[in-house]
This record gives sequence, C-alpha cells and structure tokens, in this order.
Amino acid sequence: MFFYVNFFILCYTKNGDSMNIIDIINKKRKDGILTFEEIEFAINGFLNDEILDSQMSSLLMAMVINGMSDQETFDMTDIMLKSGDIVDLSSINGIKVDKHSTGGVGDKTSLIVVPLVASCGVKVAKMSGRGLGHTGGTIDKLESIDGFNVNLSEESFIKQVNEIGCALISQTFELAPADKKIYALRDKTATVESIPLIAASIMSKKLASGADKIVIDVKVGEDAFMKEIDSARELAKLMVKIGKNKGKEVVCVLTNMEQPLGNHIGNALEVHEAIKTLNNDGPKDLVSVVMTLASIMVSLGKSISIEDAKTEVEENLRNGKAYQKFKDMVAYQQGNIENIPVSKHVFSIKSSKTGFITEINAYRLGMIERSMNANRFNQDGLIDATVGFVLNKKIGDYVLENEELLKVYLNTNDVNVKEVLDCFEIKDNLAQELPLIYEIIK
Amino acid sequence: MFFYVNFFILCYTKNGDSMNIIDIINKKRKDGILTFEEIEFAINGFLNDEILDSQMSSLLMAMVINGMSDQETFDMTDIMLKSGDIVDLSSINGIKVDKHSTGGVGDKTSLIVVPLVASCGVKVAKMSGRGLGHTGGTIDKLESIDGFNVNLSEESFIKQVNEIGCALISQTFELAPADKKIYALRDKTATVESIPLIAASIMSKKLASGADKIVIDVKVGEDAFMKEIDSARELAKLMVKIGKNKGKEVVCVLTNMEQPLGNHIGNALEVHEAIKTLNNDGPKDLVSVVMTLASIMVSLGKSISIEDAKTEVEENLRNGKAYQKFKDMVAYQQGNIENIPVSKHVFSIKSSKTGFITEINAYRLGMIERSMNANRFNQDGLIDATVGFVLNKKIGDYVLENEELLKVYLNTNDVNVKEVLDCFEIKDNLAQELPLIYEIIK
Repeated sequence: MFFYVNFFILCYTKNGDSMNIIDIINKKRKDGILTFEEIEFAINGFLNDEILDSQMSSLLMAMVINGMSDQETFDMTDIMLKSGDIVDLSSINGIKVDKHSTGGVGDKTSLIVVPLVASCGVKVAKMSGRGLGHTGGTIDKLESIDGFNVNLSEESFIKQVNEIGCALISQTFELAPADKKIYALRDKTATVESIPLIAASIMSKKLASGADKIVIDVKVGEDAFMKEIDSARELAKLMVKIGKNKGKEVVCVLTNMEQPLGNHIGNALEVHEAIKTLNNDGPKDLVSVVMTLASIMVSLGKSISIEDAKTEVEENLRNGKAYQKFKDMVAYQQGNIENIPVSKHVFSIKSSKTGFITEINAYRLGMIERSMNANRFNQDGLIDATVGFVLNKKIGDYVLENEELLKVYLNTNDVNVKEVLDCFEIKDNLAQELPLIYEIIK
Repeated sequence: MFFYVNFFILCYTKNGDSMNIIDIINKKRKDGILTFEEIEFAINGFLNDEILDSQMSSLLMAMVINGMSDQETFDMTDIMLKSGDIVDLSSINGIKVDKHSTGGVGDKTSLIVVPLVASCGVKVAKMSGRGLGHTGGTIDKLESIDGFNVNLSEESFIKQVNEIGCALISQTFELAPADKKIYALRDKTATVESIPLIAASIMSKKLASGADKIVIDVKVGEDAFMKEIDSARELAKLMVKIGKNKGKEVVCVLTNMEQPLGNHIGNALEVHEAIKTLNNDGPKDLVSVVMTLASIMVSLGKSISIEDAKTEVEENLRNGKAYQKFKDMVAYQQGNIENIPVSKHVFSIKSSKTGFITEINAYRLGMIERSMNANRFNQDGLIDATVGFVLNKKIGDYVLENEELLKVYLNTNDVNVKEVLDCFEIKDNLAQELPLIYEIIK
C-alpha cells in the first residue's frame, strides 16, 4: 500500500491561494518557474525553522539541476538580502564603491586596493570575512597587525570613512542570514555548484553591504571556486544583471587563479607583502590584479574612463599616497604597523630537480597551511597568524636542483617536505602562460 | 569569500578507495551512474543516522530528476531488502504466491483473493499493512471482525498456512526498514514521484516477504498513485524486471481506479462486501478484478494457463469453497464472523439532479471518510471501523433527482452533504466507459 501524507505548512498568498512547501518543491522538480511568493515562502520558512533542512535541500537540488530563470535569481537575491540588516551608508558623502573576491590562496588584494582607491578620493566602506578551508580572510590578515580593531561600531565606521576615505571591518551587521543558513546547507548537501545560487548568494551579501557600486574579482582556475572560464563568465554576467535589477552598477573582473596570487601565503606574511606592494615593491602578478581592480573602482567612483583612473592609481601608488592611506587606516583602527610578527622558525624547501615550474597547486598548499594552523577547520577554530609560505619561484620560473623553491614559516610540527614539493610540477619545457586578467564584464 | 567545507563521512570500499556522501550526491547530480557500493554507503549511512536527512533528500531529488538505471534500481532494491528481516517461508510446502496492491479506495480484493486462491490449493502467506491517508489497509479491515488476531507468531503463521493454505497477518517482521525511513523522507521532500524509487520501494518489501511469486495490482487513474497508464506500465515493467533480477516471477495487472472499487468503503463495510462477493453476490467491478488477480495467482502457483486457472477459480467461488476457506481463516485467527459491527447511524444522501454518473472522486470520498475517523491522519491514530459509505450508484449508472446516491454510516458529527455530493459528477450523457483491467504485464 502506498501512503501519501504530506507535512503541510500552509500559508496564504495575497490573492488568497494557499501555499505549501511540497507543491513548491514539486513545481521546481518539474522544471517550473517559481513566483516571488513561492521563493519567499520557502526561504523565510527555512529561516524560521518551519521548513525542514531536508525539504530545503531537495528544493535546492531541484534548483541546481533544473536551473533558475533570471527573475527567480533576482527574487531569491532580494529575499535573502532583505532577511537581515541592510547597511545604510547614506551619511557617507559621495559614491561608495565596494570590492569582493570569490576567494583564492594568497589573495591579499583588499589590503592594498582599499587604501589605494581611497587615496584617489573614492570612498570604500568595506566589510570582510574570516578565513575557512583553504583560503584566508581579510579580517584574519588585518588582525595579524598588533592592536588592529576590526570591530568598529556603525558610527565609528562611518565617521572613519568620512574622515579618511576608507575602513576595513568585520561583519558586525547581520547581513543576509538566510544566505548564511542556506549556504551552510548547500555545503553539506552537494548543492553548491549552481551559477544562479552562487550569484544570488554573493550578491545578497554585497547588496546588503550598502555600497553604490561593486567590483567583483571572479577567480578562475584549478584552485578557485570557478574552475572554467565559461562558467566564471556566466556567473559574472549574472551578477552584473542582478546589480542592474537592483539599480546598482556591478563590474566583474575574471582573474587567473592557477597558482597562489603573489609570493606570500599566510596572514601576517600577506600583510607584509601588501605593505611591500604599497611601497612599489610588489610581485608582478599581484600588482597587475591590484591595478586592474583599483582602476575600475576609481573609474566607477569618479565616473571617468578606466584609462584615466589607471593614471591616478599608478601615480598614487608611486608617490606613496596609497601607503600613507594604509598607515592612516591602520592608525585609525588602533593597529601598530611596526608590529606584525611572523614565525621565527623558518625552513627552506629546495627543489629536487632542475627545470621550469609548470604548476603550483594552491589548493593543496592552502590545505597544508591550514594543517599548520594558519587557517580554520571550522568557524570557531583558533589560528596562528604568524605561519605560512613565501614562494621563491612561480609558474614559468626556472629552478635548479637544490635551489630554494619556498620558505616555510611555522610553529608546529615539522612540515611534510614531500607533501609541499608535490604541489610543484617542474618540467623541461615552459608551459604556455595563461593571461592574468581574462576579461572585464560590465 | 566562498567557503567549501564538506562534512565528510568517510569509508573505504573493497578496493581501498575512500567514499564520502558529498561525492556520491555530486555524481548523481551530474547524472552519473552510482555503483552498488555508493548506493549502499548512502542508504546504510542514512539508516544509521550517519548521513543527514538533508543529504539523503538532496540525493533523492537528484535520483528523481536524473533518473536511475535498471542496475541502480536493482541495487537499491537489494540494499533496502537486506536492511531488515527476510521472511523464510521454506518450511511451507509448495509454491507460495503473494499479492500486492498499490492502493485504492474500496480495494478489499485481498480479503477475497487470499482465501479464493488458497481454496484452489495455492499457498498464500500474506502480510499486510494498515491504512493511512485516503486509502484503508487490509489489517484494519480484518480487525473489524470481532476477535480477529492479526499478530501471529512466525511459527503460528507458518503452521496455519501449512494447515489451511492461507493466513493474513500484520507485518510483525521488520521488513526493509531502510525503505520505511527513506519513504518517510520522500513523503516530506516531494521526492515521491519517481518510477525507479517507487519500484524499489514496493519490491524491497515484497521480496523481503519471502513468497516465490508475486502478483501486483497496479491501480491507474485519478484516484490512484499512478495517474497515467504510461507511467503505470513503466512501473509494472520495472517491477517485473526487478523480480527477474532476483529470480522471482512477478506479474503486474494494471487496473482502473477512476472510482472506488466495489460499492462499500470503510473497514467493516468492506468486510461485509467481501463476504457478499465470496457468496457470489459481489459488485461487477470488484468481481472482475478479484477473478483476474486470483486466476493469475493460481496459474503461477500451479504452473497452468491463466484460462485453466480461471475455470478453477470460478468453480471455487461458485461452489462455496472459497467462502469456506475465508471462514476457516477467520476461525483460525480467532475471529467471530457473526460479529462485524457497522455504525447504527445511517444517513441517506440523495441526488440533486437527474442524469448519468460520469465521475466519482474516490480520493475526496476517502478524505471525507477519514474525517469521519474511518482512517488515520497519522500512524498512531485511532480509527472507527464501523463507519463509511455504501454507494448505490457507480459511474455509468442513471440516477433520478432525489434518488439515493449513497448511504453514509457514521458515529461522529453530521456529514457535509454538499461535500459528498461534490464527489459525484452527473451529466445528461454517458461518458465513455474505461476498461476495468487495462493490461497484464509479465
């Protein structure tokens, strides 16, 4: 005998029809298009614990497999955005430009771009997150600076941006809690890989952060969230569309994440590399990504061409104004720029053969670094800001047997040298070089 | 920043590869074919609470949308079947034939078919379930007979079948607990409608019941689980294949469920109609379905043609041997056949117009009956076996205004006459009659 007993959670739409989650899931299962009210019923019900994890995950899997229309994606973004605080930056004068990265190993661009853009007169009131998994977080990096306060009140945050043009703080607001809860579920239920769901997730948080214009660094490559250029482009286009739908200009930059960005990996080590870069001594790849992101942000903030913006950005990097802005920001947030300790135990790893570096597995390096306590295994984990790697060679470089490949900064057990060496592929011939900046999508 | 932190539950396959649920779900999401080990890992992990409801439901949704290969369906059936008791009927002499129905309002065929087939010398050791939702259960119907014991020990069950040829008992064994847990989840997460999952669910339980050959009555129509003949046929073919894969002969009969089967609906009322039918006074549609099912069962049990089997079945219905077998079974199970009480409050509902009956909504009648306590709202609910409906008219009958359409037997509040009348459609012209038996699939 077959039983069909539904666990109905009923509600009524504006026109009086009743709604229940089983019908909504069934509709999406059959590749139907959900209405705003149906998506709202599902998301708010889930947030209020009226809809079960199992129900939400079957709906999410139907969304992942059958896809979502642009309108469904706009609606989902809007509902998640409105599920929490929406930061009001209206008391900051001028255009506020925000910046986001989909995440990559060694990505310390925010530390450089935020003061650089502010030094050109464009306001950046940025909230960042902490690291988890194989990639670090800007907030953890900032906290490696002795005394740096990432927990400003809303008032101090706005005051600082009005006074010096920028601030970098932790998410003290409750931004898009529906997204947070849904993302945790997606992570457990293999429903992560969906461009509309990824776009809605990123955009709900960024739109809630209150900026007028947003630049998003979409990392592409083996070590990034988006492995393929085609899907990265699709994600970028969708995020630009979501921005338009909400009346906010969004520009996406597709950048290469086939190896760590820059040479330093690890919280304090990355701050040191950011400072070097602000002092015109940065590694080529990092400088290139920083210049691209900063130029677009300045062009959006001042409504000038990217070329004109680039001239200003280059000038302010060269003349020290960007570094001065960084020092101002650190000082305003009680940080002591003279005190950014790194581990005293440094271990040199040498190449076991001669040849060209053709691959560096940033994901695995990130995981090894995490095992050295540089990053969290779970959201409550403690980290050691002083450890990490400094690469001496990058893809395309020639290395001799027994020449140093990288330095390891550590406090814990010995590092597994073979495991680290396995992250590097060394061949007799150079691999074809991939572009660093693939595309700008706006 | 995007975090990808999986909740890994690891295990190792025979060849030493590690397995985790995220990879398994992702494989099915991308329309891959799961191995036996992967399905086993998912199902057993779910049964042991190592895999979350949300993970199982996203996997189920991927299975529903992307489908399952025959081999996956065989494997899933096998794993669910082996998750619990497998009834050993080997100490019963001869071929044991079982019977299953996908469920319909007024379906009391088991009560008639079991003794009828046994009277022809074919053993039927049948376990049945209770009612839930809009359809009743054979066990509830039997319990409306005063004293009838549905809870026999395994020993008494086998002894009775050896002595009189049949027994009808409740599921004292723990048959396919994995199916039970998965079905409860599917019901909540809108992952019910999948032919492979339905087939695996039915077959895991039936195969665990230990019979040698199985006849399945697949109900088709608006009021049944399978609404379309095409999908019912697909389900039937798949169940026959699963049987072959396990070396057991399975025959499916596709029967019409566009209206209640027979005239009586309600536990005690249905037993009364079964007894009338066993005394050659049954309604045409019920007799026709009973004769078809019983003939196939006897043909399987004796390895004779369906035509020859039909001759025996007709003879034993006519000459009273089938009814005698029913009485023997009731007596063996301590039932008092003279005491099958029905409600004393009987209410006649008359037609509001003249014309031909073109539709009777059995689903809604079943739901109204449930509201009269004839059936359960949930698995622990108490029921009133004495209430129900006796139809005076069926589809195709002509009815006059104010002529009796049906009688309502009730003990609770007054019945909502309009609601009951709304289950009947009466028109000036006869609707095209649908066949009662669509197809036999073997």
